[in-house]
Order: sequence, then C-alpha cells, then structure tokens
Amino acid sequence: MAEVESFSLDHTKVKAPYVRLAGRKALAGGVVEKYDLRLAQPNREALPTGALHTLEHLLAGYLRDHLPGVIDLSPMGCRTGFYLVVEGPLDEERVLVAWERALRDVLTHQGPIPGASPKECGNYRDHDLPGAKAWAEKVLKAGLRVQPTIPLEAR
Amino acid sequence: MAEVESFSLDHTKVKAPYVRLAGRKALAGGVVEKYDLRLAQPNREALPTGALHTLEHLLAGYLRDHLPGVIDLSPMGCRTGFYLVVEGPLDEERVLVAWERALRDVLTHQGPIPGASPKECGNYRDHDLPGAKAWAEKVLKAGLRVQPTIPLEAR
Ligand SMILES: [Zn+2]
Ligand SMILES: [Zn+2]
Repeated sequence: MAEVESFSLDHTKVKAPYVRLAGRKALAGGVVEKYDLRLAQPNREALPTGALHTLEHLLAGYLRDHLPGVIDLSPMGCRTGFYLVVEGPLDEERVLVAWERALRDVLTHQGPIPGASPKECGNYRDHDLPGAKAWAEKVLKAGLRVQPTIPLEAR
Repeated sequence: MAEVESFSLDHTKVKAPYVRLAGRKALAGGVVEKYDLRLAQPNREALPTGALHTLEHLLAGYLRDHLPGVIDLSPMGCRTGFYLVVEGPLDEERVLVAWERALRDVLTHQGPIPGASPKECGNYRDHDLPGAKAWAEKVLKAGLRVQPTIPLEAR
C-alpha cells in the first residue's frame, strides 16, 4: 500500500493548537481537481466516526495504489463521504474505477489498520475495521455511479 | 464570507454511492501545499462531530476571506483538526495569522450556520454552533503556534 504523509508525524510529540506544513507538491502548469466520493445518502444516513476514520486510513493508501497524483483524501464533516484532491486532469470514470478497486482492497484487507498506532494517528482508539469493511461492502453492492452536480436554485 | 463550492450542490437530489467532480483549479506552474491545522491534542481529546462539522462550514468560508488560493479544508478522521489544501507557496506564519482571524470570525459569527440546510449539507441535523464557538475560544485562548514535523523514527 502506498505511503501516506500524514501517518509519518509522531503524534505523541506535538502540542496543539498548531499549524504544521504537512506537504508540498510542485505542479508544472497543472490542474487540481476535487472529487466528491459519497458513500452514504445525504441526510438519511451517516458513517459512525470509527468506520469513517478507519476508511480514511485504508483508502488514503489504497486509492494511491490505483490513482496517480493524489494530494489529499479527507472525510466530510457530514460523515457521508470523502473529498479527494488530485492532480488532474482526470475524469469521473477513472476516479470511479480507482475508488471501486480501493474499496475492494478494503474488503480484503488483512492485518492491522495502517498508521493506527498512538504515534501515527491522532485518535488511535476511534477505529472500527469491521465497520469500515461493512460500509465498503454496502457501497460496492449498491454500485458506484457518476453523479453530475445538481446546482442549487439561485438564492 | 467567501462562497464555498461544496455548499452549492443540491444534496436532496443526489443518489449515493457516487463520484462527483466537485472542483477544478488551474495552476500556472504552481505548488500545492497541505497544512495541518490542529485544534485538539492527539489521543487526549477530540472534537464531537457536531462542533467539528459546524467549524468545517464556518472555517471553509472565513479562511477564504483571509487566505488566497484555498482549495480544500476538511476535518481529519481523528477529529483533532483539519487539513487545509492551498495553492502556495505560503508559509506557516501566514497560515497561522489567517487561521487565527478565521477563528475570531467564528467567535463573533451571528445568524445561521452557512450552508446548513438539507439542500446544501449532507447532514444538516449534526451541527453545533455553541460547540464550534467553544472550541474556537479554547484554541484562541491556548494560543496558536507553528509546529515543525517531528518524524517517526525509521521503522
Ligand atoms: Zn488517524
Ligand atoms: Zn455539512
């Protein structure tokens, strides 16, 4: 599994509140894209924090195995999905295929959760591997699709 | 307050699971940086989901008021802080000043939480404005600092 920068900070040696430069990526005249990877139906369901956190750890690595130029993968505050920031241009189909593969990797993941020790993680107690696998399975069973942006009516 | 792309999706009209292109930003040979904005001491405390979610909504706008080139601001799965993805190069001092100003804006925020209707938000019930303000106050009282990355010992 690809290495993830945020796991290489010693979380036992920092003092919050703080600002830390966590990564820098040079782009030669490129484009940065943000993808909305949604697992749960907005306002109907939401992932519990443990499953969401474990999926963050697993997908951060597995997505990088299937997709070049990943800059960030972070859960949404609403706990219904993740935002993926990548160096593009990619397209939804390609991201969908990579995400599907990464979710299959989650399903078959063996061994400990990567980066989940107290040194590597900011909340090592709040993890749920069976929950993460259950969400991956549910989403794969439902089938991933490309969602066009349906804009809000002008306010 | 600056407008935030993710709030302009009609969340009542999508069907999860899905992939959606949520933003694209052209960079002329630039650099993308990721900053770790930490509010809570790792593995000692963590923000409850409602306060974290409301801070995401407020800081997404207020940080953009004080910092150019913001690409993404997302909570960490561990609920101890946020990752900020920006077009750089900036530096920690500048980000610290902007973050501090944005937290003061949170403290003095009046009126409803931006983007927190069922159409705009993926989990409109899980918000906590007093909790968000309390965390902003706690962090401002503690005082923000620049944290160098303390790497893990080689494994
Ligand atoms: Zn973690
Ligand atoms: Zn929201």
